Amino acid sequence: MALSERILMGPGPCNPYPDAVAALTRPMLGHLDPEFLTVLDETNERLRQVWHTSNRLTFPVSATGSAGMEICLVNVIEPNDAVVIGVNGVFGERMVEVASRCGADVVRVDFDWGQPVDPGRLLAAHPNPKLIGVVHAETSTGVRSEIADLGANKGDALLLVDCVTSLGGIPVEIDEWGVDLAYSGTQKCLGVAPGLAPVTVSDRAREFIVERPRSWYLDLNLISKYVDGDGARAYHHTAPISMIFSLHAGLGVILDEGLESAWARHEACGQRLREGLIDLGFELFAAEGHRLPELTTVKVPDGVDEARVRSRLLREYGIEIGGGLGAYAGKVWRIGCMGHTARLRNVELLLAALARLV
Amino acid sequence: MALSERILMGPGPCNPYPDAVAALTRPMLGHLDPEFLTVLDETNERLRQVWHTSNRLTFPVSATGSAGMEICLVNVIEPNDAVVIGVNGVFGERMVEVASRCGADVVRVDFDWGQPVDPGRLLAAHPNPKLIGVVHAETSTGVRSEIADLGANKGDALLLVDCVTSLGGIPVEIDEWGVDLAYSGTQKCLGVAPGLAPVTVSDRAREFIVERPRSWYLDLNLISKYVDGDGARAYHHTAPISMIFSLHAGLGVILDEGLESAWARHEACGQRLREGLIDLGFELFAAEGHRLPELTTVKVPDGVDEARVRSRLLREYGIEIGGGLGAYAGKVWRIGCMGHTARLRNVELLLAALARLV
Repeated sequence: MALSERILMGPGPCNPYPDAVAALTRPMLGHLDPEFLTVLDETNERLRQVWHTSNRLTFPVSATGSAGMEICLVNVIEPNDAVVIGVNGVFGERMVEVASRCGADVVRVDFDWGQPVDPGRLLAAHPNPKLIGVVHAETSTGVRSEIADLGANKGDALLLVDCVTSLGGIPVEIDEWGVDLAYSGTQKCLGVAPGLAPVTVSDRAREFIVERPRSWYLDLNLISKYVDGDGARAYHHTAPISMIFSLHAGLGVILDEGLESAWARHEACGQRLREGLIDLGFELFAAEGHRLPELTTVKVPDGVDEARVRSRLLREYGIEIGGGLGAYAGKVWRIGCMGHTARLRNVELLLAALARLV
Repeated sequence: MALSERILMGPGPCNPYPDAVAALTRPMLGHLDPEFLTVLDETNERLRQVWHTSNRLTFPVSATGSAGMEICLVNVIEPNDAVVIGVNGVFGERMVEVASRCGADVVRVDFDWGQPVDPGRLLAAHPNPKLIGVVHAETSTGVRSEIADLGANKGDALLLVDCVTSLGGIPVEIDEWGVDLAYSGTQKCLGVAPGLAPVTVSDRAREFIVERPRSWYLDLNLISKYVDGDGARAYHHTAPISMIFSLHAGLGVILDEGLESAWARHEACGQRLREGLIDLGFELFAAEGHRLPELTTVKVPDGVDEARVRSRLLREYGIEIGGGLGAYAGKVWRIGCMGHTARLRNVELLLAALARLV
């Protein structure tokens, strides 16, 4: 069966960088082969550059982005730990759910969808939480929240940040902001196929890792004996070799372009897309001043059959955009410009197609 | 950095089928794209054919083989459930550990490494366990255990079988044997890169799935709303698209060849390898009559520097073989002939190289 070539302008996956695609076919190596371990070490070092961190424990989890959320929580949360989580969309809600399943006493702090979280309200929600969790770039609403204030005022709490849709697309400053645990996905602004969850864990957070977390597959004690560059490599599970080759190559594309240039490219696409949508008479959903360049949310105009428009975009133009999630299903579109998709020509084509279809 | 081309004759990964490699580069699609959902449905149907099952809930978990073990346990085991596990190698031990972390009261039944498990002893270990777990093909010892007796006499217990190193290489009869839960990996006899864990769950086992398992990422209730072919596809996590393309293609290779022919190819390689090793004066490790064709274990001769031989095989011949695990580290080699690697010419080359190096 022949597959169509899509321009992927939904909330992810994006179109991967050609070099990241080609790297999927590099000759297979064993997970203990010295040549593979060199590629893994380089991948982790490239991730440190993209995360802007010196955290030693920085690596891709062998599963997709949501497993990144789970690994960060299941390794440090014990039953009855107080955890404060900001919720301004689906992925904040998911964090509440995952933390609850770890046994945490979750203090959920809600904000209007489309608005950023308010660091002051999060910090005031509990006198001494073990962990404060927040989503940097809400994939369900297209909103960016500010992280630096949380890091500066977190006290003894660990700060956990969901960077699934931010890493590689907008500035992420793990060390400067005082983030202790963060995770991302490969299929968003990193421009790689879905399948891995880059995570980074501060040395301070490592001291909180429980001895025997509920999950064996996501046990950071065991995994770190394999991914850590020094000493013997203790086998834990078989690393997803081809996907790591691809991430290695995708990060190479970003670092060759320059991380700041990649951010600027995402910014330029987001700006043109917002302008073009407004020119066409659409109303943007995310609060002004907090809009993600890599993911634009726009209200579906009254009287428009939103599913039909998405279906025609896919069928007639080969363009995928995303529908709304949760309470906003059917009410907004989510338009991504991430990774290799973040090119002005894709934005112009989408605007032209929307002008004809809506 | 250029990577070497290896002949992968360790315990996995094997060399993937060329069609499976090529499929990694198919045009990226979104995880809700109708074309991708068709590929996913076909993949699941091909998996049913390879598992010899009609189980509706049959799909690849978005993580490696060990996550297959975890998903099968975390969804049906509640604290204090009685679980009987047969241990005749590292992967039986791993099953004990994962079940313990799920809160099970584990009755561990040990057998000598290199020997199969004895179904009678497993069945007699507890009057009414919730689950009996066993490894079909022990990757640490190269031993095959018989499953059919367990299925026929399990009573009300669920039967969980680790098929990581058996699926695609030797007969696996999920329905005929009465297996309730089983998992595998893509990088062994299926001839695909590591990264996915095919699982199959019987309708009876589905009735035991707990409402809110401890793991959100591995929650079968939520995942089944996405992978199930009927009705709306509820987003849970972003599927690893490229890896699923590759699994789809690898399964296609096996089914085009014919599953029985693929088994026969593995059998022929194992037989020639065992004969050749004995001719060279080696002593096989796994008990006669229970030896896996796809994974041969052989004792390291006295006075041989086993790590040096493996290193020279890799450097001078580009052949990877595996060392021993656990108590048998340094004492045995594990030689795999799996997937695309299972060709007689690879066996002959390895035997020739070993004859020169040992």
